[in-house]
Amino acid sequence: MKKTPKIEEIPGGITAVPGIKAGGINCGIKSGRLDLALVYSVIPASCAGVMTTNKIKSASLSLDRKRFRKGVAQAIIINSGNANALTGLQGLADATEMATLTAVNLGIDPESVIVASTGTIGNPLPMEKIRRGIPKLVRLLGDKDGSEAAQAIMTTDTVKKEFALRYHLRRKSFTIGGMAKGSGMIHPQMATMLAFIATDATIPARILRKLLKRSVDCSFNMISVDRDTSTNDLVVLLANGMNKDFYVDDEKSMSYQGLQEALDYTTSRLAEMIIRDGEGATRLIRIRVKGARTSQEARGIARTISTSNLVKCAIYGGDPNIGRIMVAIGYSGHTIDPEKIDLCLNDLKVVQRGMKINFDRNRARRILQGKEIIIGVDLKQGKETAEALTCDLSPRYVEINAHYCT
Amino acid sequence: MKKTPKIEEIPGGITAVPGIKAGGINCGIKSGRLDLALVYSVIPASCAGVMTTNKIKSASLSLDRKRFRKGVAQAIIINSGNANALTGLQGLADATEMATLTAVNLGIDPESVIVASTGTIGNPLPMEKIRRGIPKLVRLLGDKDGSEAAQAIMTTDTVKKEFALRYHLRRKSFTIGGMAKGSGMIHPQMATMLAFIATDATIPARILRKLLKRSVDCSFNMISVDRDTSTNDLVVLLANGMNKDFYVDDEKSMSYQGLQEALDYTTSRLAEMIIRDGEGATRLIRIRVKGARTSQEARGIARTISTSNLVKCAIYGGDPNIGRIMVAIGYSGHTIDPEKIDLCLNDLKVVQRGMKINFDRNRARRILQGKEIIIGVDLKQGKETAEALTCDLSPRYVEINAHYCT
Repeated sequence: MKKTPKIEEIPGGITAVPGIKAGGINCGIKSGRLDLALVYSVIPASCAGVMTTNKIKSASLSLDRKRFRKGVAQAIIINSGNANALTGLQGLADATEMATLTAVNLGIDPESVIVASTGTIGNPLPMEKIRRGIPKLVRLLGDKDGSEAAQAIMTTDTVKKEFALRYHLRRKSFTIGGMAKGSGMIHPQMATMLAFIATDATIPARILRKLLKRSVDCSFNMISVDRDTSTNDLVVLLANGMNKDFYVDDEKSMSYQGLQEALDYTTSRLAEMIIRDGEGATRLIRIRVKGARTSQEARGIARTISTSNLVKCAIYGGDPNIGRIMVAIGYSGHTIDPEKIDLCLNDLKVVQRGMKINFDRNRARRILQGKEIIIGVDLKQGKETAEALTCDLSPRYVEINAHYCT
Repeated sequence: MKKTPKIEEIPGGITAVPGIKAGGINCGIKSGRLDLALVYSVIPASCAGVMTTNKIKSASLSLDRKRFRKGVAQAIIINSGNANALTGLQGLADATEMATLTAVNLGIDPESVIVASTGTIGNPLPMEKIRRGIPKLVRLLGDKDGSEAAQAIMTTDTVKKEFALRYHLRRKSFTIGGMAKGSGMIHPQMATMLAFIATDATIPARILRKLLKRSVDCSFNMISVDRDTSTNDLVVLLANGMNKDFYVDDEKSMSYQGLQEALDYTTSRLAEMIIRDGEGATRLIRIRVKGARTSQEARGIARTISTSNLVKCAIYGGDPNIGRIMVAIGYSGHTIDPEKIDLCLNDLKVVQRGMKINFDRNRARRILQGKEIIIGVDLKQGKETAEALTCDLSPRYVEINAHYCT
């Protein structure tokens, strides 16, 4: 039996999904750049969301939590330039007003509107601008291809982040597409700084939650730019059921597995786009840990290496400072046997059984000068694996973050 | 009754202590800079040591652990420029040879020599240079004031770090003095990158261990430059008992408390010197947390703020980005009530009950441009306090660490 290629990448992002419209405008929060985005499903969709574990949360997330519990949504309104965090009761009132205005203009239930914000922390939302912006944004909806929405959610991002695919299973297929933003304050513990994904498959909310949680754990929760977990992290998944063919209910079914695979592919691609656009980043670093006793151990060690300032500076400088990688493994908090560990840079072995070997330093330097670097760690104490993604740490990162408010 | 001033700061460092000699030379590990140091007590001393919790440790530390268990030492030999870590069995043999050569040249027991190394990781020690250097270093011992030892342990440090004091209790007094190094890879979990302290007080090793552990927890274990815990961290405390007047045995005695106070003062001053000389640092940041339910909570939150790249970049830029401090409190992992928290920069209140207040931004900027900044956090949920020290994160930090090996 000939195997059909299952994943077909297609152009566009969230609006590649049938029944999903999106748009973005400048409403005046930022000068000259898009700052207000809307995603709309022509029919109510099942929804699931995961949000930051930071104890201090954006006001809009308190609102969203209720929506996710209900499991139904039809629109997402997002502003950039202001995080609506540390804004107290006024912040909650403002988020509620954003949802209500969006609902009134779209003619839908206010409780089916999800609200998200991203930007600087501690200032009240400029509501007069948002009040004028929402009706204008609703009128423009569907006029363009929707990629303005992906632009309007950007802050220090330098490129918009969109991805879509069609998934084929036997004679059926469905579409999944999404957009994300994030460049600094990236160390998701539950979700990353804003990602919105939709599919036309038909999936009840309780299944959607499971699919999303698993997918986020292996994608957004495994990336880090600077080990700072944001107050506003949010990932939303909508399934509008436009596609009645592709119905996912039974967790043991092939369609469930297919949906998980398609979603994992989408979240991983969006997560990777965030790291490629990390503040000041010049290189993408993949940390692949194998031979761990547990998945938690593999993930923990990969994550620790991915957050070491010293490892990231060395890679910025193209400096094969292998010791720093071993140092990070050593302080990861996991029990390891240093004398078993092998370490590779791409396919070049640099540490064998815990000892640095006499590797070709020029070749190591050439590897570190590539756009993408794989750090391979073999712990040789089990069978579990994990991959974490990060970027290098450059003087530009410091410059961006030394003058963010001013 | 008039209270005598108890702590009298005196010039010099470890050699300010009677019976302690020290010296430093260049033996050729580094070009043109001192790289081999020796500390010697004219009589055997009680000793205690704490070392890194990194699972990957320098070979010399395996040797030292035995010395600390025995509790007696008479000399410390230290090289800079090479960490003797990731060097396997050869590393252990080299550390043993360093101890033996030092002992033979001084005419003392090899098991009373402590060995420490600091520098790049993963290269074998250049033993032929060290073999020639040790006899030369022993011959020079006592010719100068010993501050060359503090220079010879430096790596990326820009200043030598020494401190000494005389402690007066009623009619008795004793001396305590030490030296330290450290500038990058500073996030001690048990001790920091090399500090050596001596006192002439008479103290049995079992008491010395307790005094040192407590002191390190409040000083070296509360500083961070870059959240990277070194493989070579080591703090050693020698008490040579030259001063028979000042005998510490009973843990409830005033002399015990006096010794703890003098030691805490010394370790805190040395820890502060390390942060002031943090790689690329332009400012010293003190994070003072109060109103915590437990000491662990206070320490954890102070430590989390002190390791946030984003907080440190904002302070480098003189940018009053208050939100980032709150973000770090939020992801510290401790249970807090965001709506209770007050935040100050020096004496300027910037957050009240979890909301950013309309503070004078120009004044905030002036505060952040000072050499020393106090971030005050009041959690208002208990009575415990903690202080952590860190420095800002500058482009210079990245430059230093982008080309450390090359």
